[in-house]
Amino acid sequence: MTYTTQLDAAKQGIVTPEMLVVAEKESLSPQILCQLVAQGAVVIPANKNHRSLSPYGIGQGLRTKINVNLGISRDCMDIEQELCKVQTAIDMKAEAIMDLSNYGKTRQFREQLIAMSPAMIGSVPMYDAVGYLEKGLKDITEDEFLAVIRRHAEDGVDFITVHAGFTLDIAQKVKEHQRLTHIVSRGGSLLFAWMMTNQRENPFYTRFDEVLDICAQYDVTLSLGDACRPGSINDASDGIQISELITLGQLTKRAWEKNVQVMIEGPGHMAIDEIEANVVLEKRLCHGAPFYILGPLVTDVALGYDHITSAIGGALAASKGADFLCYVTPAEHLRLPNLEDMKEGIIAAKIAAHAGDIAKKIPTARQWDNEMSQARAALDWEKMFQLAIDDGEKARRYRKESTPEHEDSCTMCGRMCAMRTVKKILSDEEVDLL
Amino acid sequence: MTYTTQLDAAKQGIVTPEMLVVAEKESLSPQILCQLVAQGAVVIPANKNHRSLSPYGIGQGLRTKINVNLGISRDCMDIEQELCKVQTAIDMKAEAIMDLSNYGKTRQFREQLIAMSPAMIGSVPMYDAVGYLEKGLKDITEDEFLAVIRRHAEDGVDFITVHAGFTLDIAQKVKEHQRLTHIVSRGGSLLFAWMMTNQRENPFYTRFDEVLDICAQYDVTLSLGDACRPGSINDASDGIQISELITLGQLTKRAWEKNVQVMIEGPGHMAIDEIEANVVLEKRLCHGAPFYILGPLVTDVALGYDHITSAIGGALAASKGADFLCYVTPAEHLRLPNLEDMKEGIIAAKIAAHAGDIAKKIPTARQWDNEMSQARAALDWEKMFQLAIDDGEKARRYRKESTPEHEDSCTMCGRMCAMRTVKKILSDEEVDLL
Repeated sequence: MTYTTQLDAAKQGIVTPEMLVVAEKESLSPQILCQLVAQGAVVIPANKNHRSLSPYGIGQGLRTKINVNLGISRDCMDIEQELCKVQTAIDMKAEAIMDLSNYGKTRQFREQLIAMSPAMIGSVPMYDAVGYLEKGLKDITEDEFLAVIRRHAEDGVDFITVHAGFTLDIAQKVKEHQRLTHIVSRGGSLLFAWMMTNQRENPFYTRFDEVLDICAQYDVTLSLGDACRPGSINDASDGIQISELITLGQLTKRAWEKNVQVMIEGPGHMAIDEIEANVVLEKRLCHGAPFYILGPLVTDVALGYDHITSAIGGALAASKGADFLCYVTPAEHLRLPNLEDMKEGIIAAKIAAHAGDIAKKIPTARQWDNEMSQARAALDWEKMFQLAIDDGEKARRYRKESTPEHEDSCTMCGRMCAMRTVKKILSDEEVDLL
Repeated sequence: MTYTTQLDAAKQGIVTPEMLVVAEKESLSPQILCQLVAQGAVVIPANKNHRSLSPYGIGQGLRTKINVNLGISRDCMDIEQELCKVQTAIDMKAEAIMDLSNYGKTRQFREQLIAMSPAMIGSVPMYDAVGYLEKGLKDITEDEFLAVIRRHAEDGVDFITVHAGFTLDIAQKVKEHQRLTHIVSRGGSLLFAWMMTNQRENPFYTRFDEVLDICAQYDVTLSLGDACRPGSINDASDGIQISELITLGQLTKRAWEKNVQVMIEGPGHMAIDEIEANVVLEKRLCHGAPFYILGPLVTDVALGYDHITSAIGGALAASKGADFLCYVTPAEHLRLPNLEDMKEGIIAAKIAAHAGDIAKKIPTARQWDNEMSQARAALDWEKMFQLAIDDGEKARRYRKESTPEHEDSCTMCGRMCAMRTVKKILSDEEVDLL
């Protein structure tokens, strides 16, 4: 049995060792999983060179996964500090980490990250090209862009964001169109600048076949980036965004022909009432490829609280079929997130993913909630802490700061605790409120 | 022109001074508002004795409002501290404050609260009965319960929660039924204990007409409580919950006949995929009366983060037509919220309400977002801070803690800021990434 990628194997009906691990994690039959991979509805990002990986699946019928962004940059070149973030992300069970490094010793950081990480590793080669090559953006050649992709693939990156669907034609529309926030994708803006300055077509589009060849060789999953994702609810679901999505759908089919796994990146900022339509459209236009979203942030005004706006949008999107959520921290739009911001972002994303999983009927999802509610009804505080989404770190602290009169209640309601009152009545005890 | 309540006036086609204020706040025609009040789709909680009130409307076609809970209790008898919370809630533009005081000098606190507050004031007389009367719950008489309601009405409370729909028959079902978390409504649990211990019907149900007479006299809006609101996603939308809702619908009609304004309280804990159905059912079964919800919390496991789980559920519910959101703080299920918890809860609720308003097409809702996005595209930081949901308190602090190399960007992307890059290209400037 020989195969190049997970998709190649699946098409041949081969259940790979990675599929077995994923099937086990998802309580799913390996054969069903194999079929889902074959049809492109599930990806298993697993670069052949990422030896510490514990593979995860992303897509239809699976638990919603979350991604954590980090990396070194001009404003934060401290590799040790970023590796500390990596360890925290792993400890908090983030399934994926995207290395957005764009300045400094990016390769050294990437190598250490991949070596230590059981989580899937993603990257945006475009960022690294700009930071690593240390030359003016407009002077970077097509060959150089491809060389950076190859290097990331060799290093063991499991999935890469490539904005291959952002064509010169669409870029021209951005320039003419009256969007409020034009382009807010960082990679997209760099490509926009490159294309506009050089008046040339997107090199990832023109040389897409070469990108695919590299991906196929190492089994790098393509995460097709949405350069035109809306950066304001005003710009959401407009012709520009959907045009790019249509192109991404065409590229998806080309990738699948070459046995390259694909997921599609999505918004962004978007009003609640447009989210379901966007999930439906992505699944239709991109032929069922998994949907990887950044947000959606359901309002633009919550500066400092975008972990909440994105949890709202992410939960709703996941409930409608989005498969993979990129975390957003309270520092979004403001500064590089610190460790605390990162933790808050991870927890908010985990809440959104889990709430989505309950709604999309992932078979095992409700079990966790039911255990928590049983512990609650029993007023079993230690059990509640153990089951809490952050392993009870915050809950323990809160309870310690505010000791109740009665061990079985909390200071919120004290003796008037509904759980306590009802428990007493149901076991024929007297209720002692005074 | 004479009338007793806002509803009475509206039925006669009289536009009251309160309606004029609300119409102005909502950019709505006073005549249309008057019709909505007449049909019960909008309430204007405005007790005749609440002289410092700046009235708000709650209901169909209006902005989603938020409520802040506070009050003195056995675990926190410090009136000054609670009044400090009141001032913060008012400063943060919460439209309503519920006084959940249940121990100590509750009347003194209530009087000070009402005197200083332009926000609508709500209360749960049941709590006060238990705390204030200082006698065993089972010994409280029906007359005493009604006397407490009358006292709250006299004092100027604008809306009161009364669990009049929680009949002995439903309480019996709770006892027999296999719910995970039985009853989590505090007032509901007290009533449950009273009914079960005394084996008597709910006094607020049997003497509902007298409750209505008191409400009509002072124009107190009835907030019909859902004693059986689910306390776990497992218990949501079950027969018990919906049975009580059907009864609340019957009581709503009786209240309207006596010109008493009504809103209906709702869940609770609830999976995302059940929220829309619950809003539809409430509007149908309760004949279009405004829906006032606590949550819904879309998962049970986020102990310490229920301001986020409720923001998800609240935003979705508001987008489908819920009218009034009770805030939930990070301290929910854990302890009495402190000032910081309260602020986080208010901000999360405001995000949910606003995100809901955008989706339910409140005409002016998007304007705020568009102004923010214009400021973002212009990299106008001061303007962004001014427009932020917390008036920029957190955003200013974050930016100060992490000074960017360039004034026009932030440390998140530094020179690679998409806004900055695109702005330069669109104005034909060179992009300086190095």
